[in-house]
Amino acid sequence: MEKTNVLVVGGSAAGIVTAVVGKSNYPDKEFLLVRKEKEVLVPCGIPYIFGTLKNIDKNNIPDAVLGNAGVNLKIGEVVTVDTENNVCALADGTEIGYEKLVLATGSTPSIPGWLKGAEHENVFTIKKDKEYLANLLSKLEAFKKIVIIGGGFIGVEVADELNKLGKDITIVEILPHLLGLVFDEQMTVRVEELLGSRGVTIKNNNGVREICGEGTVSHVLLNSGEELEADAVICALGYQPNSTVAEKSGIDINSMGYIIVDEYMRTHTPNVFAVGDCAEKRDFFSRRLSKVMLASTATSEARIAGMNLYNLSAVKTSGGTISIFSTAIGDDAFGAAGLIESTARKEGFNIVTGTFEGVDRHPGSLADTHKQMVKLIVARESGIILGGEVYGGSSAGELINLLGYMVQNKMSINNVLTSQIGTHPLLTAPPTAYPLIKAAENVLKIIKANNNA
Amino acid sequence: MEKTNVLVVGGSAAGIVTAVVGKSNYPDKEFLLVRKEKEVLVPCGIPYIFGTLKNIDKNNIPDAVLGNAGVNLKIGEVVTVDTENNVCALADGTEIGYEKLVLATGSTPSIPGWLKGAEHENVFTIKKDKEYLANLLSKLEAFKKIVIIGGGFIGVEVADELNKLGKDITIVEILPHLLGLVFDEQMTVRVEELLGSRGVTIKNNNGVREICGEGTVSHVLLNSGEELEADAVICALGYQPNSTVAEKSGIDINSMGYIIVDEYMRTHTPNVFAVGDCAEKRDFFSRRLSKVMLASTATSEARIAGMNLYNLSAVKTSGGTISIFSTAIGDDAFGAAGLIESTARKEGFNIVTGTFEGVDRHPGSLADTHKQMVKLIVARESGIILGGEVYGGSSAGELINLLGYMVQNKMSINNVLTSQIGTHPLLTAPPTAYPLIKAAENVLKIIKANNNA
Repeated sequence: MEKTNVLVVGGSAAGIVTAVVGKSNYPDKEFLLVRKEKEVLVPCGIPYIFGTLKNIDKNNIPDAVLGNAGVNLKIGEVVTVDTENNVCALADGTEIGYEKLVLATGSTPSIPGWLKGAEHENVFTIKKDKEYLANLLSKLEAFKKIVIIGGGFIGVEVADELNKLGKDITIVEILPHLLGLVFDEQMTVRVEELLGSRGVTIKNNNGVREICGEGTVSHVLLNSGEELEADAVICALGYQPNSTVAEKSGIDINSMGYIIVDEYMRTHTPNVFAVGDCAEKRDFFSRRLSKVMLASTATSEARIAGMNLYNLSAVKTSGGTISIFSTAIGDDAFGAAGLIESTARKEGFNIVTGTFEGVDRHPGSLADTHKQMVKLIVARESGIILGGEVYGGSSAGELINLLGYMVQNKMSINNVLTSQIGTHPLLTAPPTAYPLIKAAENVLKIIKANNNA
Repeated sequence: MEKTNVLVVGGSAAGIVTAVVGKSNYPDKEFLLVRKEKEVLVPCGIPYIFGTLKNIDKNNIPDAVLGNAGVNLKIGEVVTVDTENNVCALADGTEIGYEKLVLATGSTPSIPGWLKGAEHENVFTIKKDKEYLANLLSKLEAFKKIVIIGGGFIGVEVADELNKLGKDITIVEILPHLLGLVFDEQMTVRVEELLGSRGVTIKNNNGVREICGEGTVSHVLLNSGEELEADAVICALGYQPNSTVAEKSGIDINSMGYIIVDEYMRTHTPNVFAVGDCAEKRDFFSRRLSKVMLASTATSEARIAGMNLYNLSAVKTSGGTISIFSTAIGDDAFGAAGLIESTARKEGFNIVTGTFEGVDRHPGSLADTHKQMVKLIVARESGIILGGEVYGGSSAGELINLLGYMVQNKMSINNVLTSQIGTHPLLTAPPTAYPLIKAAENVLKIIKANNNA
C-alpha cells in the first residue's frame, strides 16, 4: 500500500493551495495530491475561454505549481475513505494510507429538479472539466442563438463572452435583476445596461418551464408562455458540492449537502479536513450556513487548512466567508464584499449607507479616466463596516480587496475617515475625492444628522 | 472687518479638504477659504501637463468643489495673523476675523545653498503656480537638451513626460539610485531600466557643482568634472514648507521649518491649526520628525483637522505619516507604504522581508497581463507589517493602498495569511498566487525556519 503523510483529494484551486501551503508549513512531511483530471483548468478563467482566450489550453494550471513546491501528484479517482484505518481507495483498486486527509473535491453544476428537458442535445452546463468544455467549444461555430438560463456570475460572464463571438444571446433570470443576490439594485442596473448596450437580451423576472426540442434543443419555453428559439442552451443555475465520497465514508454532511467543518477546516472525523466548494460555508457576520462558492473563499480555507494540519494556531482560523468577489464586462469592473444593503436589512442590522461616485484618475481630463463608485454599508450603532460595493475601471478589483480587508477586520468608518491613501494621477482617484473616503464621509453625515435630530 | 467662523488659508489639496470636510462636519459654521492664486492646479497632476495632458487648463481644480460644499472663496494673500484677536490681515489691507484658523500654505521648491548658477535664464523649478508653469510650457519647444537635477518623484515623473515630447533628457542624482530614499534597490533598478529603455539618460552618484552659462544656461558642471550641455535645467531638489507668515505671527516652527502641530493638527497657538506641506510631519512608527510631503498625507491631515475643529474626537487623530505613495512610468506602476527595508534596518527594527513576483491577471496568457511584485517588511518579534513595496500594472495603485491599510492599522502577517481576497481573471492575480499573500507566506517560512534552527 502506498503511503503519504498528507493526502489531498482534488486538483483545483483549493486542493493546490492546501498542498502548497501545507508543504511550506510542514516541509518534513510528504504531500500527495490525487485528482481525476489529466489537466486542470483555472476555474475562474473558464468563462473567458470563449471570447477572450479562445484556446482552452491557455487556461491550464501548470502542474509545475505542485512540482516546484515539492508536492507529489497522482492521477486517479478516490472512491472511498476508510476513516478507521486512514486509507483511501481509488477506482483502479490502489490504496493510499495517510496521516492527514484533505477533501477538496469541488462542485458540479446543478440541474434543479424543476427544469425539464435538460437532457436534450446541445444543452450544456459550465462544468470544470476540460474535455467537456473543449467539446462545447468545438460545437460553438454551429450555434447562432444561445439561451443562458440563470443570471448569476457564470451566466453573465459567459453571456458577455459568447456575445463577443457574435452570437445572439438571451439570459433568462427568475429574479428581478441579473446578479440580484450579490449586488444591490443600483449596481445590477448598471450591469444590465452594459450587457444590453453590448447586444445581450435580458429576460428578468422570467422562470423557465421547459427546454424543448426533438432530440436536439430547438427552443426554451418560459413560464410566461413565451418561446425563445435556441440552437443551444447553457444552464448556469449554480453548483452543488461534491460530497458523495465523504458521505459514503461516514464523514458528516450538513443539510445543504456540504461537508461539515470547524474553524480550522476539520471535519467531524479525526485527521480529515475539507476545503473549497465541497466544505461547509458560514457567513462571516452571523455564522449561519451559506451556499457561496468562490475561489477567494476556497483558497482562504485552503491556506487555513494547510497551516493547521499538524499544529493548531489560535490566530489562523477561518472566520466565515465575507463573499468577496469582482467581475468585469469589457472595461467596467464590479465588486462586492461583506453584506450588501438588501442582505444587511434582511438580516436585521440597523444600517446607514453612503455612496460616492467619482473618477479613477486625476485630473478627470486624463484620457483613460473611468467613473468609480463606492457604496458602504455601515452598522449605525458601532460604525463597523459590514460591507460595500464598488464599480470602476480595472483597479476596482484591488479596491474591493481594500474594502474587503476592512470588513474582515471589523474596521469602523473612523479608520476610513482618518486613513492615509496613496494617490497618483495615472493610477487612482484624487486625494481630495477618493470615493472610499467620501462614501465614509457621507455615512458620517447621516449619522451626525440623526444624532442631532 | 469681515468675519467668518473658520478661515482656511491656502487653496490646494490640504486647504480644500479641510474646508469641505469641516463644513460637512459643522454645517452651521461659515467657512471661508482665502488663497493667492486665481486658479489652482491639481498638484499631483503637474508633472503630467508636459507630455500627457499637454494643455495646462486640463489640470485645474474646479472652484465648484468649494462652492458645492458651501465654502466661501476669496482671492487674496494673508500676510500676518493677529493671534491675540483672531484676525488675519491680507496684502490689500483687508482684515478677516475668525474663530478657527487653518494654515494650509503649502510648500515651495528648494534651491539649496550649495547649488550655484540657479539664477541663469532657462533654469526652472516645478512650482505649484499656474502662470509660472504656463511660461515654462510655452518655452519648451525651443529646448532640445534638458538636464533635471534631482531624481526624486518630481524629477523622475517630469523626465518621463519631457522624454515623451522627444526631448533629450538627463537626470543627475547624487544618491546611488533614482528614488533611492523611497524604494529599496530592487525597485529603483526597475525604475532606472525602464526610464533608460525609454531613452532617458541617468547619472547616479553625481553631484552638481554649478549651472553654467552666460545669462542663459548652456551646461551643467558635475562634481566629477563632466559637463552636460543644456538648453534648460529643471531643479527638482525637494520643497520647503511655506511657514513665513506663521513664524512672523509668533506661531511655533520646528527645527526643519515646519509649523509645529499635535495629533489633531493644532498648533501651539489657540484656535490655529496647520495642515499639509507647511505642517510638521512625524513618522508613523517612531514619531520622529519627518520631511515627507505627499498629497495623501496632506489630505489625511486635512480631514483630521476638519473633523476636530470644534470638538475633539478621541479616535479621529493623526497618527504620523506612513509615507504612502505610488507613481507610474508608462504602463508600469510602483508604490510603497510604511518603512522600506533599508529604513527599517537603519531605524533598528529586527525585520524579515518576503517578496513574491507573479502576474496581475489569470491565466497569465491573457493579453494585458503585467508582472506584479510585492515585498513585505515585517517585524520579526510581533509579525507586524512595517511596510511594503509593490510593482505592477495600473492596479498597483490600489494594491499599495491595501498594503498601506495594513500598515496604518498595525496588522500582522497572520491577518494576511488568513485573508479573503477577491480575484478575477481580468482584474487581479490568481487566488492561488496572490502576490501579497505569497509574500507573507515567504515571510512566515523564514520566521519558522529560524525558530526551528
